[in-house]
Amino acid sequence: MARIAQKSRIVQKFGGTSVGDIGRIKRVVSHVKNAVDAGHEVAVVVSAMAGVTDDLVATVGQAADEWDSSEYDSVVSCGEQICSGLFALALQQAGVPARSWLAWQVPVRTDGVHGKARIQSIETDILAESMAQGQVAVVAGFQGLGPTGRVTTLGRGGSDTTAVALATALDADRCEIFTDVDGVYTADPRIVAKARKLDKITYEEMLEMASLGAKVLQTRAVELAMKYHVPVHVLSSFRGPPGTLLIDEDDFVEQHVVSGIAYSRDEAQITLVSVLDKPGIAAAVFGPLAEANVNVDMIVQNVSEDGANTDLTFTVGKADVDRAVGVLRTLRDALHFRDVVPDSNVVKISVIGVGMRSHAGVANRMFQTLADKSINIKVIATSEIKISVLIAEEYCELALRALHTAYGLDSA
Amino acid sequence: MARIAQKSRIVQKFGGTSVGDIGRIKRVVSHVKNAVDAGHEVAVVVSAMAGVTDDLVATVGQAADEWDSSEYDSVVSCGEQICSGLFALALQQAGVPARSWLAWQVPVRTDGVHGKARIQSIETDILAESMAQGQVAVVAGFQGLGPTGRVTTLGRGGSDTTAVALATALDADRCEIFTDVDGVYTADPRIVAKARKLDKITYEEMLEMASLGAKVLQTRAVELAMKYHVPVHVLSSFRGPPGTLLIDEDDFVEQHVVSGIAYSRDEAQITLVSVLDKPGIAAAVFGPLAEANVNVDMIVQNVSEDGANTDLTFTVGKADVDRAVGVLRTLRDALHFRDVVPDSNVVKISVIGVGMRSHAGVANRMFQTLADKSINIKVIATSEIKISVLIAEEYCELALRALHTAYGLDSA
Repeated sequence: MARIAQKSRIVQKFGGTSVGDIGRIKRVVSHVKNAVDAGHEVAVVVSAMAGVTDDLVATVGQAADEWDSSEYDSVVSCGEQICSGLFALALQQAGVPARSWLAWQVPVRTDGVHGKARIQSIETDILAESMAQGQVAVVAGFQGLGPTGRVTTLGRGGSDTTAVALATALDADRCEIFTDVDGVYTADPRIVAKARKLDKITYEEMLEMASLGAKVLQTRAVELAMKYHVPVHVLSSFRGPPGTLLIDEDDFVEQHVVSGIAYSRDEAQITLVSVLDKPGIAAAVFGPLAEANVNVDMIVQNVSEDGANTDLTFTVGKADVDRAVGVLRTLRDALHFRDVVPDSNVVKISVIGVGMRSHAGVANRMFQTLADKSINIKVIATSEIKISVLIAEEYCELALRALHTAYGLDSA
Repeated sequence: MARIAQKSRIVQKFGGTSVGDIGRIKRVVSHVKNAVDAGHEVAVVVSAMAGVTDDLVATVGQAADEWDSSEYDSVVSCGEQICSGLFALALQQAGVPARSWLAWQVPVRTDGVHGKARIQSIETDILAESMAQGQVAVVAGFQGLGPTGRVTTLGRGGSDTTAVALATALDADRCEIFTDVDGVYTADPRIVAKARKLDKITYEEMLEMASLGAKVLQTRAVELAMKYHVPVHVLSSFRGPPGTLLIDEDDFVEQHVVSGIAYSRDEAQITLVSVLDKPGIAAAVFGPLAEANVNVDMIVQNVSEDGANTDLTFTVGKADVDRAVGVLRTLRDALHFRDVVPDSNVVKISVIGVGMRSHAGVANRMFQTLADKSINIKVIATSEIKISVLIAEEYCELALRALHTAYGLDSA
């Protein structure tokens, strides 16, 4: 619809510990009030209060051994429904006109993939009208309306995606993600004491950071922000600005080679020992895994020792290890491998930076730094703007700190 | 829509402690399974798990001092949303195809009076289609879809009303209300040890029982059942039949004078002492109270002592006492009364029976019985099928037992 007023629009998202209890909700509404007082039209997206979603998921698990994911979604989406109502009430209490919106009321339309639905469209006509009349729209995140009229959910962290998608649909001037950290860091500050907060990061780098383990933003949310050039601002609910701004690479004046270092303990390594080295072997291994819904990430095939057999190593999500090993054992006769060896004591360390495109030697510095610390690299994977290595989990902290120093990221 | 199959339809309602936790839900689904196995199409209505609604109401109270009842409804309706999903999952787990339905999905349309909405219509087309395909419909009770597309709730006990309204809309053969008592009793068996379970009770008597304090069924649900002649069966979730059947008076073969004795501690008495006794005084008192949303129940005006002044005594809900007294104090100069005396230590005792229409002396037996026990009657109110008296709360149990015996209701 046509913009009724010339006011700028802001989407603010509050999640997890920012809405941990009523006391916190009452504190964080001040961010909304400030934006309203500054003359903006504001839409708020909330996730569930900390712990509520976990409790609901646990209750579903008690009700049935294998659950119907459409019922799961209907139950679990209540966390955001409750929080949206309470947030609207807290805003009213602070003198800010507000109302809550559930996904089906907006509606936020998604596909029908329960538990990990994707937003297809957000109808903003009545929402924008309500906002133009001075009402803050408090939208329940994480939830959607599926094609058959049932409640869907977007997967863990889905409220970030709701916020960015809503910012796009409302043509908002910016999307502020309020969280319990004060921005995006060069590395996890709980491990790397010298980690620095980044003032800016490109969408692409943030995308790699998110998908490689940094838990500040949901990957899908960053993808959307990148696609629609939504200015996303990550900042602390408790300390406020300045946080970290997500921007287009073209807007980045001061280029740096490496922006940050991420890690993920969510993967496990599987090695097929002495598998027959013949054309089509990769398809024969990874086809059945894909059919069993196992996502394979890094893959390395060793040089054949004897020209006939080779070791094939790859990583899968830790939760999928047993399933993957089960599938592989059924292939033993067909593939003639000697053994399947899973190893969950691994960590993936990734160095990320758009500057890699134009700088040589970035990968080599990583390998040299790890070698200096006698850390063995099990698997390597690279893309245009990141290098990931798989190492033994026990070296995680050591490797993160050494790399952080090696790439000149340490704070003074 | 046309009935697809010749199967009979049953609506079963489970509330409160019947769905107190997952373990109980898993037990009570056997009632649904039995009905399905017997060849019926079944719709289930659930209320929230015991305690959940109270918790949600308390949370709303923490968020705001005076709340927007549309947000209250959106938050509080989650209790039923959660339970409907879990109940559907438990049915599936027991091998019974089922799906949950939220009010907006059916939809169950109501007026827009948040917190105590009234059902206006229930669209049953897609619900009935799903049932005809062998799926048990698990409908979230207590909630509705208001005219502006927001969630409404029907007030405490509203799931009973959802069940009866759904039975009407589906043209169901009967509506079974599963509860934690095994039927309707002649008096509260926790107080009157000799109370008997009634096999049958007329809608009218049940209506008086419900509105006079017996908490087995919501008043509005009984009104609907009476209006549409829905056979309602009240029975225990844990012990099953026989419970109590609600029927039309015409179907009652063995008439009795008194069916039961109810009590309510929810009322308080207010006395205006020495108010000016002139025409229009009642309107001058009760008009402002009605405007302040205070419901007045029993009213008695004493004979003037001196022909000029009188005491005016009436009852209001206990929760409204302070508000009522506040309103009355503002009227002091206009009405020239000497004092406002509230008294919350009262109980209303009611004797109910359709047989009163044709039997004299019923009221007198009540007065005589109470007099024999030296219990003073403060206020009396009568209707065609009930007599209510207000007495000091401390005599409640004594009065109930004495009246139960006096009307011949004691079990052998």
